[in-house]
Parts: sequence; C-alpha cells; structure tokens
Amino acid sequence: MAKFITIGERLSTTAPAVNKAFLARDPEPILARAKQQLEAGATYLDVNIGPAEGYGEDLMKWAVQLLQSNFDNVPLALDTSNKAAIEAGISVYNRAKGKPIVNSADAAGRIENIDLAAANDAIVIALCNGEGIAADNDERMGYCQMLLERGMEHGMDVNEDMWFDPLFLVIKGMQDKQMDVLNFIGDLTDMGLKTTGGLSNNSNGMPKHIRPIMDSAMVAMAMMKGMTSAIVNPNDLRLMETIKSCDIIRNETLYADSYLEI
Amino acid sequence: MAKFITIGERLSTTAPAVNKAFLARDPEPILARAKQQLEAGATYLDVNIGPAEGYGEDLMKWAVQLLQSNFDNVPLALDTSNKAAIEAGISVYNRAKGKPIVNSADAAGRIENIDLAAANDAIVIALCNGEGIAADNDERMGYCQMLLERGMEHGMDVNEDMWFDPLFLVIKGMQDKQMDVLNFIGDLTDMGLKTTGGLSNNSNGMPKHIRPIMDSAMVAMAMMKGMTSAIVNPNDLRLMETIKSCDIIRNETLYADSYLEI
Repeated sequence: MAKFITIGERLSTTAPAVNKAFLARDPEPILARAKQQLEAGATYLDVNIGPAEGYGEDLMKWAVQLLQSNFDNVPLALDTSNKAAIEAGISVYNRAKGKPIVNSADAAGRIENIDLAAANDAIVIALCNGEGIAADNDERMGYCQMLLERGMEHGMDVNEDMWFDPLFLVIKGMQDKQMDVLNFIGDLTDMGLKTTGGLSNNSNGMPKHIRPIMDSAMVAMAMMKGMTSAIVNPNDLRLMETIKSCDIIRNETLYADSYLEI
Repeated sequence: MAKFITIGERLSTTAPAVNKAFLARDPEPILARAKQQLEAGATYLDVNIGPAEGYGEDLMKWAVQLLQSNFDNVPLALDTSNKAAIEAGISVYNRAKGKPIVNSADAAGRIENIDLAAANDAIVIALCNGEGIAADNDERMGYCQMLLERGMEHGMDVNEDMWFDPLFLVIKGMQDKQMDVLNFIGDLTDMGLKTTGGLSNNSNGMPKHIRPIMDSAMVAMAMMKGMTSAIVNPNDLRLMETIKSCDIIRNETLYADSYLEI
C-alpha cells in the first residue's frame, strides 16, 4: 500500500467560473483554483472540460500545458467524453510526476477508453457500471470482470493502471445501499486492485454544513476497506484531515505531531 | 445491528474535580458532568470511582442513586477494581433503561468479574488482554476464547452481554499495530460478538487539537469493522458527529437533514 491519492475535482466545467475561463482560455481562474487545491494537498488535478465537441483537442492541450508548466508537471486526470481531446492532452503531457489518468471508462459505451489508456500507457478510471446503476455487488463484480478482461486483452498492468470506481451512491434515496458500495471496495482490495471514486456523491442534496462531516465519515470507512484514491474537493479541510489521519492509522505515513501540516 | 452505543467517560476519579466531588459526596460537579454528557448524546455513563478501598460500596451506591434519580434511570457502567463496590452499585441499580455494565474483566487477574456479571445479570466489558499487551491477534484471540468460555460456563448470553474490548493502542509508539486492532474488531464482529473499548487511547500524547481528528478517523474505521460501542468523551463534537454519520452509512438510523441534532 501507499499514501492515499487525492484527485482534486475543482477544475470542472460544472463550475460556471471554470467553464467561462476554459472557453476564454483565461489562465488566471484556472491557475488560482489549481493552486488552492495543490496547497491543500491534492495529488492529482482533474481537468474536466465537458464534451467540448470541436474544440476539445485544443482546449485540453492548452489546459495540460498551462497547469504542468505552472505547477512543476503536476499529474493530471483528463476528464471528458471526448476521446480525441484526451489523446491530444496526453500528446503534450509530461510524465515526470506520474502517468496521466483517463477519466473514465465504464463497462458500456465508454469501454474503449481502456484501449485508449492502454495504447497511451496511461492510468484509467474504470467505473463498475453498465448502462444504469448496478443493482447489487454481483452486478458490480460482473462489470469489473468485463473491464479487467478488456484491460488484460490490451496488455495493461491491471493492478497498477486500472483504478476501479464502485460508484458512490447518494444517501438521500439509497441509504440502504451504502454498505454494499463499501463492501465492494473491500472485494476489489482483496483482489489486489486499486480503487477510486467520486466520494462526495454520497452526500448530494444534504445541507452544506453536513457534507464535509458525512464525506469524512465515508472516506474513513472506505479507507478501512482498502480504498487507495478518491476524487475529492481538497479544499474541504475536514476531509483532508481525515484522509491524513487514516493514512497514519494504516501506517502509510509516519506519525509526527505536524502530520496535518505536511 | 443497532445504533452505536457510547459510554461517556468523564465521570472518573482521574479527573481531580470528579475525584474531589466523589470523596466529598458533593452532587453538583457530578450532576453537571453527567448532564453535559447526556445532552451530547451519551447512551451510558461510566462511573469510575477508582479502587476506593474501604468506602467503595458506599460511594458506588451513592453515585448510582444520584445519577439514576436525577437522569431518569440513565444506564451506567460501574468502573472499579473493587468487586464489592460493583455489587453494591448493582444492588441499588434500576434496569429500566438497560442492564448495568461491569467495567471490566480481563483474561488474567480480573477474570472473576465475568462470574460477578453473570451472577448479577449484568453486561461485562471483557478485555482481550492477559498480564501484558497482546503481541498479535492470535494472542488476542486466545484471550477472547478464555473470556468466552468463562462466560459460557457461567451461563451468560455471550453474544449480548459480553462486550469485547480489543484494547486500543497508542499510535505514538505503536503505529504499526493499529490495523491489527481494527482487524481484530472485524474478527470479533464476524464471530457475532459485540465490541467496545477506550477509543481515545490511540491518540494519547498527541497535541490537544489533533486528538478529536484522530479519534474520529479511528472510530469510523472501527465502525466499518462492525464495532458496536465505545468508551468516549461525548463532549467531543467531531467524534459524535462522526459516530452519527457512520450510523447513517451503516443504515442503523434513518437519514434526515436534522440527524446531527437528534
């Protein structure tokens, strides 16, 4: 095992300010958000440009070069349904601090993103998901097997470069499924696989003051199940404190009284 | 499963103000601390009178009657090495809100406290511990088996009335043993046993601002392993928020936006 990897989620077109800056190729808002996330301890930054049809290749290249040139080749997750944009991003990506992450493949329409990751020696986030949400862990495991086979067919190092996403489910509406998701993370861990996921989906729709509390509880439980990474808001202080503390408990980083600062 | 049970630890002779109040039979400081803990959501209150040789019977009776008459028969953990004092406390204890807890038995010199609990239809906290700290989980399980056998010999309902304590270990000094303790909780859960323990021992010696952070991470990981109870400071708000959140995730209590307040 190794220290938990956080993928900062705040460079996303779902944020209007980011979307505007991407469209205008305005570096300042992008760099400001990147800096905030890295100073808070993010390992990777996710770059979600949306589908970006027609201009995705140019935009992703611009974003990759902007971020890596300003932040010492920060490792990035390239997040778009636009395959050409992902390939364009990888073509200018510097691997000094880590392989690029392709975000994401699933066991349905996006399974070819595994082939893309394999062809480009990239990591791929593999959603254990078909057309809809899996009904139970048997179905999740079926999708996982499909994704694993695809990765193996294409010669991927599936234990290192495929990060499986169980898909966190919203508590408001699917409270009785939460332990399934956590136990599935445990199943993936037992198989020697790496795991990641959009953690905060669990607290969707909850009051703002509750979300960091619930997300922190969830990440600690997921880390007990061996989870190795998550897509998070690194500027959620409580969440980052929890992740660092669980890394101490898992003995992945040596305790010092200053461990929260480093 | 059921909602996590918290045993409030703040009525203890290790706190000078409490010790003084016990010795002077001064109700006010005791009632004030009890009220604080109950308002913060403690299920049980621990009453730690120390060895109290010569006066333990009188003191424990006084404390039990004081607390139960003021707080609607609040359930209590009777915490002393003085067996006569425990029996005296039980003799005046009202079971309307739950059986008394005998705190505690171990697999060495205090094993007879199991007999005492069995004879008095009480719950017993059973430390998976011999003369020293167990070196590994095999040794912990050996102690657990000794304790279980003793309980069965005396006709206890071991799945309900024996709460097994893995003994939390201090991270500063035993960082590499933390996952053993957590995995042992998982082993006890798999055996259908209930679990408890002095949670904050993990963060002993850490700076004051760190302890609630580390304790919260630890309790969430322990709850993922099925832990059913802990001896805690219920006035640690972050810890109680974490416990309530994990109960939601474990589906032990129904989510409402007001769940932190109730």
